[in-house]
Amino acid sequence: MDLMNPVDLQQQQILQMLSQASKVLLIVHKVPDGDCLGSVSAMLTRLRGQGLQAIAYCDDPVPDSYRFLPAMDQVFQASTIPEFTPELVIVIDCADEGRIGDGSRFLQGQAPVINIDHHVGNSQFGHINWVDSQAAACGEMIYRLCTTASWHITDDMATAIYTSLMTDTGSFQYANTTPQTLRLAADLREMGARTDEIREKVFESRPRAFVNLLAQILPTLEVSDDGRVASLTVTREAMVQAGASEGDCDGLINYPRFLAGVQVALLFKEAGEEIFRVGFRSKGNIDVYAIARQFGGGGHRKASGCTLSGTLAEVKQQVLGAVRSSLEPLEIPT
Amino acid sequence: MDLMNPVDLQQQQILQMLSQASKVLLIVHKVPDGDCLGSVSAMLTRLRGQGLQAIAYCDDPVPDSYRFLPAMDQVFQASTIPEFTPELVIVIDCADEGRIGDGSRFLQGQAPVINIDHHVGNSQFGHINWVDSQAAACGEMIYRLCTTASWHITDDMATAIYTSLMTDTGSFQYANTTPQTLRLAADLREMGARTDEIREKVFESRPRAFVNLLAQILPTLEVSDDGRVASLTVTREAMVQAGASEGDCDGLINYPRFLAGVQVALLFKEAGEEIFRVGFRSKGNIDVYAIARQFGGGGHRKASGCTLSGTLAEVKQQVLGAVRSSLEPLEIPT
Repeated sequence: MDLMNPVDLQQQQILQMLSQASKVLLIVHKVPDGDCLGSVSAMLTRLRGQGLQAIAYCDDPVPDSYRFLPAMDQVFQASTIPEFTPELVIVIDCADEGRIGDGSRFLQGQAPVINIDHHVGNSQFGHINWVDSQAAACGEMIYRLCTTASWHITDDMATAIYTSLMTDTGSFQYANTTPQTLRLAADLREMGARTDEIREKVFESRPRAFVNLLAQILPTLEVSDDGRVASLTVTREAMVQAGASEGDCDGLINYPRFLAGVQVALLFKEAGEEIFRVGFRSKGNIDVYAIARQFGGGGHRKASGCTLSGTLAEVKQQVLGAVRSSLEPLEIPT
Repeated sequence: MDLMNPVDLQQQQILQMLSQASKVLLIVHKVPDGDCLGSVSAMLTRLRGQGLQAIAYCDDPVPDSYRFLPAMDQVFQASTIPEFTPELVIVIDCADEGRIGDGSRFLQGQAPVINIDHHVGNSQFGHINWVDSQAAACGEMIYRLCTTASWHITDDMATAIYTSLMTDTGSFQYANTTPQTLRLAADLREMGARTDEIREKVFESRPRAFVNLLAQILPTLEVSDDGRVASLTVTREAMVQAGASEGDCDGLINYPRFLAGVQVALLFKEAGEEIFRVGFRSKGNIDVYAIARQFGGGGHRKASGCTLSGTLAEVKQQVLGAVRSSLEPLEIPT
């Protein structure tokens, strides 16, 4: 028998705690995405299927594009959650308690807290912390947990886990995609993952308001003289004009990002009276986390964000100044 | 020893012919894409590496986004191709001779013609026809040829074949993606495929003119009352205004396509005085090939195109009429 590595040990601990609990609360992060929802969908499907009382909490409602996932009717918000005293709390895809939002009150009870995550800077807030920053998505970890437990993976569970992988890797495009991720995706297809449904619901069900918003926003494109910095600006007026909601802003930052030569892409989004949320994406070697951190923001090297006060012009000047100082000087042709 | 299946036999024939030829001409289709260019890049790299004289022909120049592929300086057009009498001609990713364009003159010589393709309706125009409609991309077939030949796959070849897979499957999103495709992608990553480079060059190097064009075109979005048909229109004036070229129209049809509820997406593109090219995409069960064929067009069930004469209003009326008759009647709520 092989010696158990530490990761396996954590999985064994989690499975043992699950075997002793009959009421389990799963928690995912605010503004939920395909990874945390796919992961929680697979877990809810499994745990409820084996007769446990399992429900999930999320600060925000499940976006329309993820409602097709199994068991999403068991994901509650603060106002809808039934009376429930969990014997075990499992938090998925949250780097720290701040990501849980108001749900962090569930961490104060008697129930032990299991923290399952793949973010580099996880704050280890659980009693058991299973953090694997090599995993492309939490869905990959949930799959490993299923394998360790010898749980049969149903087509519903395969669909949920595939959704995690597909969304957190940008359809297997981002650098976090490993050979292991792709082989797992292949296995999940063979286990019955409904990949056509995932593609259609997640990537091909944009509301018309998104196209309207894009049409409003693209003319705000600004590119620096050297072509290395590009930005878009979303005002509240543009949102109203387009009939758009928060979710429709998803992916807007990709438009400056995918321009040839751009190293840093920015999205300035009016969040309130003289308050702007700034999104940063890096396409080269620039560490945008280091820039966002200067303004009290967070994220990681390739994708970060922060919030700033001031007029749009003031905010732009501050942010562009910081971005410019982080760029390598251009070589002057001799 | 296993009995050889017919596909293996064709590969053996191809490898035998390659072993007897010292001058090989590879041909790919007009308006070349990532699949045919990735496939030809892998073949050129291998054949030239083993000392053969191998060059490639394409009617159109290699788009900027694919120039990073190895050996692209050996892909010539009619005006640039050196004097060359091939002993063997290999045509890749062409369903029929029409797709080769002016290059079809190379099929009239003494050299035997090998036809490697994955389109359903391939016209079998070669002396050897290796057509596998189950392959997600020709790159998958080239990989199998390498394996059959026991050729070492260099990181350059892996990069080229990965580009084929990634582009012809829409980043592993389309229904042609199989478990085998994903496992092959995993293997290619381990063989050194430069996936970050592929992503950046192919998907993240759009010119600014593309964003300008998109901003011009999105306001032309029209959606039918029942939400099942959506279209965009590209006029020559919009192209000029945006400073855009033909290649910048790539992907525009995705914007009506990814709207929720849309079953048929259309792109009307002004190609000349009262001449319009019409692109069709199907998201549901509608066979858009059947529609395009009514107008003398071609393609397949999910993606087709045709060319029509008339004013924009006339062309729209004709096409929308045909699309409407192909839609199932809506159920009337009782």
